Amino acid sequence: MKLYGAPKPAPNPRRVRMFLAEKGIDLPETPIDMSKREHKSAEYRQMNSLGQVPTLLLDDGTAISETVAICRYFEEIQPEPSLFGRTAAEKANVDMWVRRIEFQLMSPVGNFWRHAHPYTAALLTQFKEFGESNRAAYSNAQRWLDGELADREFIAGDAFSMADICALSTVDFAHWIGLDIDAERTNLAAWHERIRARPSASA
Amino acid sequence: MKLYGAPKPAPNPRRVRMFLAEKGIDLPETPIDMSKREHKSAEYRQMNSLGQVPTLLLDDGTAISETVAICRYFEEIQPEPSLFGRTAAEKANVDMWVRRIEFQLMSPVGNFWRHAHPYTAALLTQFKEFGESNRAAYSNAQRWLDGELADREFIAGDAFSMADICALSTVDFAHWIGLDIDAERTNLAAWHERIRARPSASA
Repeated sequence: MKLYGAPKPAPNPRRVRMFLAEKGIDLPETPIDMSKREHKSAEYRQMNSLGQVPTLLLDDGTAISETVAICRYFEEIQPEPSLFGRTAAEKANVDMWVRRIEFQLMSPVGNFWRHAHPYTAALLTQFKEFGESNRAAYSNAQRWLDGELADREFIAGDAFSMADICALSTVDFAHWIGLDIDAERTNLAAWHERIRARPSASA
Repeated sequence: MKLYGAPKPAPNPRRVRMFLAEKGIDLPETPIDMSKREHKSAEYRQMNSLGQVPTLLLDDGTAISETVAICRYFEEIQPEPSLFGRTAAEKANVDMWVRRIEFQLMSPVGNFWRHAHPYTAALLTQFKEFGESNRAAYSNAQRWLDGELADREFIAGDAFSMADICALSTVDFAHWIGLDIDAERTNLAAWHERIRARPSASA
């Protein structure tokens, strides 16, 4: 089994590294040099037609991409500690929260990075006004999430889960591109302190 | 158990109805009148703080939203016929394809609807130029998916899965808002004919 990834600040490979650290699975990452566009090479695209990082290559040649799908594979082969829930309702609840974090919180951060950040401007056509509008969208998402976190410790409820990993990588990547937690979002800030204190957060 | 949904052309409730039809689960939808903004009411938001449709309300009061999370709940309580895969590798592969369809194919269609369609213009601030750019993004996604479908019957491989449901609802909603399958994408068009011929497609 081989895990192709890339170092910080790339948020998706980090999600997988955090997940593996929480599971106690030791699988060193095979680094892909994104600055040399190795992920867009013909060889890499044989495994992953979209040329994205990370990719998990199984011993039988099956290639799994998409961060959450890769983590789900590890959850299946090593269920404990559970990070996607155990019962049908728990599993649905964690999946709901992973998706809410991705669609509500990650999406504006990704749009800002793609359409408003100077780094991306050099590589791709941007729609700046749209990109800038995602500052407000990210703030709105924070307000909503802050309310949700008023009476619980973790994103999906009483237990740490994949949803916390997705949210942490989003908030930290957002900070790296200049989008911070708004001062009034004290529940979100307290959650961030709790999660970044976990050993897995340094992955 | 109660399933709150909305009739066609809303693509998300349709994905759940198709999934239930494929499973042979008879659970009539409790309709939410989106034209009357019932999904944004305080009462509905008690179940779903984002005010989105569909929502599944379990008998113990647990509310599950996010279409794929709802379907995953039904997969857990009734595994056959499998629509999310059976082994760890199959589950990861289907999840990968569901996500690829959502991020590559649904995302440009959703952006076009949100930022370029006249219906939405009356309700929300649009970034038209960005919205229009999603025509090309949807065409690019079609080209990629058409290549993937050159040598297989279904999106995720040899078996019908949740990924086909996601892709069908996307292609049909795109058609409804004026984005069609490009003439040269014959593999995609053939796949579309196969899937829309299934009884569940009328759900």
